[in-house]
Amino acid sequence: MQGLSCSTSRIVGCRFSIYPMTDNFVEVILNALREVDTSKVWMETDDVTTCIRGRSEHVFDVAKAIFIHAAKTSVHVVFNGTFSVGCPGDSEGNSYMSMNDERLNEEASIKEKVEVATQIALYPLNNPDYLQIIAEQVEVAKEHGTFTKGVHYASRLDGDANDVFKTLEQSFVNVYKTHEHSHVAMTATISANSPSKKEAI
Amino acid sequence: MQGLSCSTSRIVGCRFSIYPMTDNFVEVILNALREVDTSKVWMETDDVTTCIRGRSEHVFDVAKAIFIHAAKTSVHVVFNGTFSVGCPGDSEGNSYMSMNDERLNEEASIKEKVEVATQIALYPLNNPDYLQIIAEQVEVAKEHGTFTKGVHYASRLDGDANDVFKTLEQSFVNVYKTHEHSHVAMTATISANSPSKKEAI
Repeated sequence: MQGLSCSTSRIVGCRFSIYPMTDNFVEVILNALREVDTSKVWMETDDVTTCIRGRSEHVFDVAKAIFIHAAKTSVHVVFNGTFSVGCPGDSEGNSYMSMNDERLNEEASIKEKVEVATQIALYPLNNPDYLQIIAEQVEVAKEHGTFTKGVHYASRLDGDANDVFKTLEQSFVNVYKTHEHSHVAMTATISANSPSKKEAI
Repeated sequence: MQGLSCSTSRIVGCRFSIYPMTDNFVEVILNALREVDTSKVWMETDDVTTCIRGRSEHVFDVAKAIFIHAAKTSVHVVFNGTFSVGCPGDSEGNSYMSMNDERLNEEASIKEKVEVATQIALYPLNNPDYLQIIAEQVEVAKEHGTFTKGVHYASRLDGDANDVFKTLEQSFVNVYKTHEHSHVAMTATISANSPSKKEAI
């Protein structure tokens, strides 16, 4: 149902939420946002999710930074989002494509050590080779040392949040750069500080 | 990356989490689970998500019931999940396909009135007509009276949780029944009791 309202260009987007499982969840989110420079992405928050759009590197930079700054509080925090590119439609936020490639939040993000458990799924649309494309990105995650195992409908990644986000970004970029007009979505559920016993991996 | 670990049959699955934004989130989830009969689905919970698999009607019945029983507490609760069908791979849980079609939780679910704001995205894979397929399901949501508008990368549905889940299920079933061997994913973010001001719709 999403097809009629997104972009034709190589602008990348992410629609996501941060879920801090605490009574003061609003404060955790607002404090995290205060620490993140979002000036290089188009950003809009509604009552369900936040959408950021811009150059791939800034979308991943901002998504990672908001999650890390919320998770460093030691509260159980989950990031749940879908990265997208190539969806036919509008061009809102295209002016952000002229930003340079310097990441504004990387320096602060890499200082934090947040252990995460992650499940991701890649959806290369309109592509008969999609299973092969997915399998290739499993190999990338293995090279990064973040791949743990496949589960139903997803792949599991474990490790430091900075390393896991690196795999997410690399896999996503690899897939959408494969074809000039590709339309790709990637879902990610990233959990930190869960009280649940870590699954045997 | 998910492609190598799911089912070839018409078994439907949902990998999801329930996020209650409260200090006692564990209790909210466990109390909701106690009220739901999950005996007609294969179910496995790890430290990131829960995966349920079985006949389409039971997967939607169980997902809806867990969310509704968590949300009726008036805590801000979000359901975030991906429904999938037709992913090539294993056959775990296929024995649940022999269950009859009587829904075990519908009676209790429809008694609850929970207002939700929802964003969904449909991903019909390996299909050059995917945008048309998505547009057709927007029409279904309009007929149900749950469709609010398109947003970047998603469609927004509003209304009672029972009505919104009906649209989710109908749209998903419509799409995967279009083609015998179709592979379809549908993401849904369903929010209840948010303190955020409801967006103008």
